[in-house]
Amino acid sequence: MKEVYHLFSGGKDSSLAAWILSRMGYEVKLVTVTFGILDNWRFAKETAEILGFEHEVVKAPREIMERAIKMCIEDRRPGRAIQYIHERALELIASREEVKRISDGTRRDDRVPFLDLRKTRSLEDRFNVAYMRPLLGLGYKTIRELVNEIFIVKEDESEKLEKGDYETELRYALREKGINPRDIFPPRHIQSRVVGLR
Amino acid sequence: MKEVYHLFSGGKDSSLAAWILSRMGYEVKLVTVTFGILDNWRFAKETAEILGFEHEVVKAPREIMERAIKMCIEDRRPGRAIQYIHERALELIASREEVKRISDGTRRDDRVPFLDLRKTRSLEDRFNVAYMRPLLGLGYKTIRELVNEIFIVKEDESEKLEKGDYETELRYALREKGINPRDIFPPRHIQSRVVGLR
Repeated sequence: MKEVYHLFSGGKDSSLAAWILSRMGYEVKLVTVTFGILDNWRFAKETAEILGFEHEVVKAPREIMERAIKMCIEDRRPGRAIQYIHERALELIASREEVKRISDGTRRDDRVPFLDLRKTRSLEDRFNVAYMRPLLGLGYKTIRELVNEIFIVKEDESEKLEKGDYETELRYALREKGINPRDIFPPRHIQSRVVGLR
Repeated sequence: MKEVYHLFSGGKDSSLAAWILSRMGYEVKLVTVTFGILDNWRFAKETAEILGFEHEVVKAPREIMERAIKMCIEDRRPGRAIQYIHERALELIASREEVKRISDGTRRDDRVPFLDLRKTRSLEDRFNVAYMRPLLGLGYKTIRELVNEIFIVKEDESEKLEKGDYETELRYALREKGINPRDIFPPRHIQSRVVGLR
């Protein structure tokens, strides 16, 4: 059976990508990365159960989060930090002996996280894996159309919607250091979480 | 029903992309573009029948081929010409009133034909279509794995394998003008055609 380890937050992009992989005949194993700061990974686990996929939670070294926080403070914006965390998360999964295929829900219209062709091939070569991004060739229209057809989605502003993504932990960790995440993240950032199948 | 008009040559890439779109729930309508020089579109039609998708042949203006031939002669390589023909073929399909979604089998590792983000959005905006590329997020390993699992493929050098693609007509048209296509195209270019389903 062709297993693919898929980075999963419970959001609509990573959920749709998992659904497409499964339709393509892959055995999808969902992986949520946490830094052990919060237990927001349980929102991803809930969605994983709804979608009917295997799910595991992988704890990443706290140093990664510490470096990401520094990047946020230096840049006064979250882009480089999110990119950094995502690359390390991919490497963490790809480095496991049993893993031959990794994937995520990054899209054509995303600026971060996003691996360009050079980084993509480097990841594949260093860890001898195939890196699959089912949404990369799809635009926002197509993604919206499929999401609305397949999933029931809950949407709200980032701070109000708990989700199993890096951003939730990053925001919390910033607040712990006395930094207001609103000074770093864009003001009206709508997040989504898949809460059901249609 | 969600219809997608998919540029189709009968090769493994456009066949795999069609298969994925169909697995995603789209009604795939295959389109092979010809310049009326050869009847090699019938190889695409054969493969379309094997795959069980609707298929139509669309005749593109001969001027497009004439300009492509000039590009080949100027550049002594086929890249710009292939890119030019592909963009015009996408526009030709996208410009039809009933067409809301177009797609092709271009891959992550292709240099041509390939539309960058700016050209992709321009195509979508000018014709109010969604442009879908199911193979864009997949590497050669994944594509090879899926192709071998799903299709029976015949492979040979470009000049020996007749296929329903632009290259076959472009080579013929060059020869008609007294130019040896081997002076333009790379020497050992292996082409593939899907001849069966596993």
